[in-house]
This record gives sequence, C-alpha cells and structure tokens, in this order.
Amino acid sequence: MNYRLLSRMLGIICFLFAITMLFSLPWAHPSLGWRKELDFRPTNFEWSGFWGLLGSSLLSAIVGGIFWFYGRGAAGELFRKEAMATVGLSWMLATVLGALPFLLSGTMRDADTPVSVADALFESQSGFSTTGATILTDLEDPELVPHCILFWRSSTHFLGGLGIVVLLVAILGQGAAGKAMAKAEITGPNKDSAYSRMQKTAGVFATIYVLLNIVLALIYFLSGMTIFDALCHAFGTLATGGFSTYNASLGKFDSPWIEYLTVVFMVLAGTNFALLLLVAMGKVDRLFKDIEWQIYIAIISLVTLIVIVFGQYSSDFENLLAAFRYGLFQVVSIITTTGYGTHDFDRWNNFGRGVLIVLMFVGGCAGSTGGGMKVIRHVLLAKILRLELELSYRPRVVRPLRIGGQTLDDVNLRKQILVYFGLVGAVFACSWLVLITVEPDSQWTQVVNTSEGNQLDHKLLDCASAIAATLHNIGPGLGVVGPTANYAGFAPWSKLLFVFLMMLGRLEMFSVLVLFLPAFWRRS
Amino acid sequence: MNYRLLSRMLGIICFLFAITMLFSLPWAHPSLGWRKELDFRPTNFEWSGFWGLLGSSLLSAIVGGIFWFYGRGAAGELFRKEAMATVGLSWMLATVLGALPFLLSGTMRDADTPVSVADALFESQSGFSTTGATILTDLEDPELVPHCILFWRSSTHFLGGLGIVVLLVAILGQGAAGKAMAKAEITGPNKDSAYSRMQKTAGVFATIYVLLNIVLALIYFLSGMTIFDALCHAFGTLATGGFSTYNASLGKFDSPWIEYLTVVFMVLAGTNFALLLLVAMGKVDRLFKDIEWQIYIAIISLVTLIVIVFGQYSSDFENLLAAFRYGLFQVVSIITTTGYGTHDFDRWNNFGRGVLIVLMFVGGCAGSTGGGMKVIRHVLLAKILRLELELSYRPRVVRPLRIGGQTLDDVNLRKQILVYFGLVGAVFACSWLVLITVEPDSQWTQVVNTSEGNQLDHKLLDCASAIAATLHNIGPGLGVVGPTANYAGFAPWSKLLFVFLMMLGRLEMFSVLVLFLPAFWRRS
Repeated sequence: MNYRLLSRMLGIICFLFAITMLFSLPWAHPSLGWRKELDFRPTNFEWSGFWGLLGSSLLSAIVGGIFWFYGRGAAGELFRKEAMATVGLSWMLATVLGALPFLLSGTMRDADTPVSVADALFESQSGFSTTGATILTDLEDPELVPHCILFWRSSTHFLGGLGIVVLLVAILGQGAAGKAMAKAEITGPNKDSAYSRMQKTAGVFATIYVLLNIVLALIYFLSGMTIFDALCHAFGTLATGGFSTYNASLGKFDSPWIEYLTVVFMVLAGTNFALLLLVAMGKVDRLFKDIEWQIYIAIISLVTLIVIVFGQYSSDFENLLAAFRYGLFQVVSIITTTGYGTHDFDRWNNFGRGVLIVLMFVGGCAGSTGGGMKVIRHVLLAKILRLELELSYRPRVVRPLRIGGQTLDDVNLRKQILVYFGLVGAVFACSWLVLITVEPDSQWTQVVNTSEGNQLDHKLLDCASAIAATLHNIGPGLGVVGPTANYAGFAPWSKLLFVFLMMLGRLEMFSVLVLFLPAFWRRS
Repeated sequence: MNYRLLSRMLGIICFLFAITMLFSLPWAHPSLGWRKELDFRPTNFEWSGFWGLLGSSLLSAIVGGIFWFYGRGAAGELFRKEAMATVGLSWMLATVLGALPFLLSGTMRDADTPVSVADALFESQSGFSTTGATILTDLEDPELVPHCILFWRSSTHFLGGLGIVVLLVAILGQGAAGKAMAKAEITGPNKDSAYSRMQKTAGVFATIYVLLNIVLALIYFLSGMTIFDALCHAFGTLATGGFSTYNASLGKFDSPWIEYLTVVFMVLAGTNFALLLLVAMGKVDRLFKDIEWQIYIAIISLVTLIVIVFGQYSSDFENLLAAFRYGLFQVVSIITTTGYGTHDFDRWNNFGRGVLIVLMFVGGCAGSTGGGMKVIRHVLLAKILRLELELSYRPRVVRPLRIGGQTLDDVNLRKQILVYFGLVGAVFACSWLVLITVEPDSQWTQVVNTSEGNQLDHKLLDCASAIAATLHNIGPGLGVVGPTANYAGFAPWSKLLFVFLMMLGRLEMFSVLVLFLPAFWRRS
C-alpha cells in the first residue's frame, strides 16, 4: 500500500470540499430567494449557518493541508488497491467533513435538540450516498435549520451523484455488471481499450450530469419555484437523492406538472449514463434497444399498473387519475432510489407496501446515479440461475451468458454477480439482527395514535425496511421510517449503523468491506 | 428422457405406499393404546379412518399398477436426468397419495369443515417434507381426526425422513454441500469411489435412522407415553418434522425430562448421518472434530444464551430455569427445523422473535433429516465471500477453499453454493410477493383479541415467516402461523403455494425446479 500517494489523494479531496462549502455561503443572505412562504427580510442574515460553513471550510482546508504535507513527493501509480482505498477512505472523509456544517452551525434536530455527532454524520452520509433519509424533523423553520445549511445538505446530493458518476466509472470501472454493460454499450467491437476509454468517458458523464442538473433547475424555476428550491430539488432528483426543502417533500407543491416532470428526470437519473451519452449523440434507438433499460421501464410500468389496480380495489386513492399520479410517482421514486414522497405509501394496502419493499431491492440501471442492486444484476441473476438449473441435469453442457444478443465472455462475471447477491443477503441479515438488538423499543412503545394498538409488533418489519432503505440508498421505509416520519428517533449507535450501510450500498460493497480486512493494509 | 423407466420407478413407489398405509390400519382399534386422556371403549373402532386408509391403499396399488404396466419391459440405466425426475415426481406422487387418507376418511379441519383437497395436500406434503405445519385445528377429538389418521399423518414424517436419507444420499449424492462433506467425512483419501460408496452407505443410514426411531419410541414409552404417542412423537422428532398428537404439541406433557430428551434426539436428527455412523463405529472424536457440527452446536449454545439473557431482561420467562428449558427447546426445535413447541415464542420480545426468524434460514447439518439451508452452506458462503473480497483487490491470487484443514478442490462447489443462496433468495422474494397478493386480508381483520389493535399490519411479516417456515420445512412461524396457531386460515391457493414451497425446500430446489423447464423433458 502506497500510503503517501493515498494521503495526497485524500488531501486533494479535502481541498475540493473546502472550496465547495463556500458555494453554500451566499444562501445565508435572504435576497437570493429563499423558499416561497418566507418573507424577505434583509435582517434575516443567517449568521450561525454562515460561520458554521466558513469554519467547516477552514477545517477541511487544514485537514487537507495535513494530508497533503504527509503525501508530499509521493510517487508511483494508482494501482487497484490504492484506487479502492482512495474511494473508500475519501467517502469516509467526505462523511466527516460534510457533517461539520451541521455541527458548527448549531442546526437543531427539532425545537429542543441540537444535532448530535451521530445525527450530523447520518445527514452527511445520507446526502453523499444520495439516500435522502433525514434526522431533521422540521425543515421549514430557518431558526432550526438555516437556508444555507439546507443548501449544503442538498449540495451533498449533487456532490455524491457526481462522485458516483466519476469514481465508479473512472476509477473502479463500474463493477462487474457495469463493466459488462459499458463494454456492450460504449466501446463496440474494440473491447480491449474499454478501460482507457472509460476514464475519458468519466469527464463526459460528469458534463451530462451537470447539464441535466442545470436544465432541471431551470425548468423548476420557470415552473414557479424559487431559485433556492429549484436548485435543491434538481440536486435531489438527478442524484436520485431525495432531500427536499419542505417537510412534505415534493408533495408540498401539490402540482401534477412538477411531479410528472420530476418522474421524467428521476427515470433519466436512473438510466445508464452511457445510454444518455448515446442519446445526446443522436442515437436514440440505442436507448430503446438496451435490454436493461427495457426491463427497467417494464418494471416501472407493470408495478405502477398493479399499484393502481390494487389501490383502486382497496380505495387507497380518490380516483383513477390520482392513483396514476401518486402511484407512478412513488414507484419511480422508489425504484430509482430517490425517495421523494407525494403520498403516504405507508398507508397503502399491504400489497402495495410489499411491492415497494421488493422494489427497494431492485434499484436503477448500472452506470447511473441510482443506488440499489441495479436492474442488470437481477437480469443476469435470473439468466445465471436458469443456466445453472440446466447444468444440474446436463453437467457437461457449457452455454455462454448472453444478454441482448451479445455474449458476455467474462468468465468471472457469473461468480461476481452471485457473490454480490450473497454479500447483500449476508449484510442485510446481519444488520437486521444487530439493529433489532441494539435499538431500544421506546420508538414503538411511544405510540402517537393509541387507536393503532401495539406498535411494538411493527419493530421487526420497520427495522427491516430501514435497513433496506439505507443499504439501497432510498431513504423512506415503512412505519417509524415511513414517508411522513424520519430517522430522528433511532438511537445514536443505530444511526451509525445506518451511516455504515448507506456507504456500503453506495460503493457497491467491495470498496468498503475490503477496508476492514487486515490483509488489505499489509504491504505486498 | 426414458419415460418407461421413470414410469416403472413411480409404480414401485406407489406399491410401497399401498403397503405402508396398511401399517396405520391397526390404530383404528382402541385396544392398541391411544392417547392418554381418552378412555378405552371397544365400541370406538374408527370405521371412517379404517375404510379411508384401506381405500387409499387400494387406490395407490391401482395407480401403481398403471405406472408399472406402462413401464413394463423398460430397459436402460438410471441416468442423472431420470434420477432427478424420479425424485421430483415421486415426491409429487407421494404428496397426492398421502393426501388420500385425509380425504377418504372424512377428516375434519375443525368442528364444521371437512378437509378440502388443498388441505389434504398441504397436510400430506407437510408430513413428507418433515415440515410439521398443520391445517388441523383440533387433534384431540377422534370424531374429527381418528387415531389411525393421526398415525398416518405421523408416518408421513417417518417416510419423508427415510426418503431424504435414502434419496438424497443414494440417488442425488446429497447435493454440492453434502457431497463435499461426505467426501471429507466418509471416504477419506480415496475420493474417486465416493459415489459408489455412498450408494452402499444409504442402506447403513436407513438402518441408523430406523434404529434411532425405535430407541426414542422406547424411551418415550418408558417415560410414560402410550405406544401410540411414543411412536408418533419419535417419528416427529427424528424426521425433524414436528407433528404432534396434541394441540399443545410436546408442551402437553409438561415434563422437563421429555423435553430435554427430545432436545438430544432433535440435535442428533440434525447431525450428519455420516458422523452418526462414525460415532456408532466408535470414532466419537470425529464428531467433535467436525467443523460443521462444531458450528451447529456453537450456534445452538450461543443463541440459547442470548435468548435467555434477553428473555430475562424482558421477563418472557418466569425464572432462569424456565428460560433455559423453554429457550433451549425452542432454539433446537427451530434450527433443526423440527417445529415442536413448548412455549409460545410468538409472545417473546422482538429480539427473540427476530433471532428465531434468522435461525429458520440456518437449518441442520448436511446429510441429516434436518431441512433448511444447512449449516455447512453458511460456513462455505462465509468463506467464499471472504475469499472473493480478497480477489477484488488481488485479482491474480488464487486461494483454495479450505474447511477443517481439508482443501475442497471441486471447482464448481463455490458456484453451486452461491447459486443455491441465489435460488433461495429469489424463491423467497417471489413467493412472498405472490402470497401477499393472492392471500385475502380476512385472516388478519378477523381479530380474536381486539385489544391488539390492527392485526392487518402484521400481514407482511406473518406472510414472510410463513414462507420461511414452509420453504425451510420448519412448521410454525409468527402471528397467524405462530406456535399456537396453524395454517387452516389461509386460502386454498395459498396452501397450494405452501405445498410447492415445502417440496422445493425439502428437495433442495434443483430436483423440483428442473421439472418446470421444458428443455428438461425433451429427448436428448
């Protein structure tokens, strides 16, 4: 392990953070167009948020200086191990640095409680991992959460989404599934230069991502949002994050236009950026010919239809139009792992709730900002299981794994897909056991609505949905973490578990888990 | 596919069934010592049960004759495909034939409802798959369920356990995990003859199984049970089934001695029969040196300890002794997939309930009558995931999979273990979705105890536990399928889903799933 090189890389990350934090500073001034309801009063300058952000920026710069100093004169190339360590450690560093503004500005979790260290780390990780789960109970009182801090909170989505597009594509090559897709989609027949091409592609992807953000923010603004709201919600949509600036999330605007618009952009954000690039190059047909995208759209359509039919049947919605509007939005919001809410899906019938839980395990397309397990992995898993069933009675038949007419000749791909599912299953089961063990029952015994009876019975399911919602970077789950609730009620150690899970899910397991292997750190 | 050979094999199975059904006939006569509470009255001869069994036996013989006639003069060897088809189809046939006595005898599901076809298939499959889930609500009224039918019900456990020991060991070679263990345990250095040796071993295993049944029945009898109870409960214990002859299951006897005795024999039934053979040959040390058995015992000890500690903390038990007695029994009952109950674990605190759900996914040892995923598969999965993590940053390092100091050189083993976990995950998720879709809410809205509030919220978790409890052949789950409840309330189609899942789990997925591939049936 080349520690000096690693240190220099981390130093650069710190400096980048010190600079990006400054972009949130202007929003401390009310003239920049805060949220709609709040009156413009020039005296409202948010000093606590301003100094908090400035202090955080300074601290980041100092930490960066230390890393840079230790890593001065580092030589050598960035090998696979250093690349993995850089990704894992820089994400951890980002979480810590990103938590500073919440702490230094004295942001309040609710009217009585300032955010704790665990809260700040949770909110920061939730932002960077584009999860969108929150521990803030009231976003709409600037005395509790200043606008500039809200902007920083949404910026972490933007940075996280950018990081995923650049880091996973450029440095780690998108993992097995993504690599397979990228090979099939971008590079064409010349497969050998896939890696070098992808490094160049990262810049293009970043450009697409930034452009999409600007376009959506502009449309939001023209649709009547303030600049502040437009930027924050664009960040939340295109990073498939889900942080809003209102307690009612996007439901606050109560506008079908804004909701359908957001649906379109969530779908885009969950699409492989390689495909978006092809579309930008005029090859729109490639999008519709892509097998992953076809299935992604098919799942969205099918599940929305089912939710509408079952919703009508059990009168979850007022009428068919409302069912389509809220059903589609929620389905897209969950499968893309965004997590915006316009409807309290925790009040849906059990079938709808169950379907949404399963959707949480699907996720967006590989090579997108969407989290979760990715559609392509499920497609490949289904194909692999089908082939293996045949192998059980024809042990000598060797069939290649084919997708969309193309043969995937990577011999390790099958194993890697299976290992990924094994890891997700193991992490899910273990974290669930840990969570139900360490989390006290108090959240469930303090029933708000006593007519609902014994809420403690919901602990097992609520905890399972919270694990799924953080591990797959969605945000809201069921019950105490439902769309109208938040993660504030969890114990500090449970919040730290969620922080770990969000990072694990976002970096597709490996880059984080290897950091905990002693062998990884030995010089070799 | 050699259909004639297949047909002849199925014919033999039918004849075997026609004969074994006759063994339940004598219990129609009260003089053979029914259950304790019931008075001996010679006039009580159970004609309905008697004729039902005799008719079923006759029908089985006729069906067997048809298969035999079609398969007359069949030539050729039993190849892998025919072997798999025989196992899968004979299990389906057994389910149908085993359901006949319930139907023909007019057994009653409760005081008002005779068993339906779905009920009878469920009860039969639950017996053969050694699951032990039931749809009978009152076992203790011979007017509803005659003794001879109860005996047939427990016999299906005995036959199922025997079938697993013989079929999986002799014909299919125990699957990947079992094969690996069998290689390591039985054959020693001469690995090539493993398969032929195992076929001989099947006879030895069957002998061990029958002997254990006789020994336990004898001890039960000497402990004060009637012959009837002793045999039925011995069948239920050693097949890791869990059918009892009382509504309160083994808790009816309220005897610590019987419970601890049952714990010992459940642990034995969940142990690899290859190890039991070695113990019988005097090599007791091999048992304690076996890595799977060590972990199996370690899990039982650890989980029992945790259940006791958390149980004390939340006063689930009266005192420490009761906690040990009921905690140990329930943990062993679940991990061995037996499913006997002495304590209503659905009333335990959430931690205890959560732990039991996870235990359902563990299961007994490979090569035992215990169902579930098997301890060895989890051990291998953990080792495989650990090795794969290392491969992610050292792609060129090749390390063998080692277990207990022995290298497992089967190149396919890694993939097979991962595929198995993938299949279980896929089947679990899909069945859960299907179950919550097709099962109406009425079971949960008809709340018995209104103080418990909205039971409908429990549907998702209850359904998940029902899937786990049937797929892994355990029996009781949580809520509406908890230890004091049963599966009677489910809709007919849900019961058929459970029938499918029980068979799927029992035959370790492959032998059943391949039957649904059209390619499997093509001549080749």
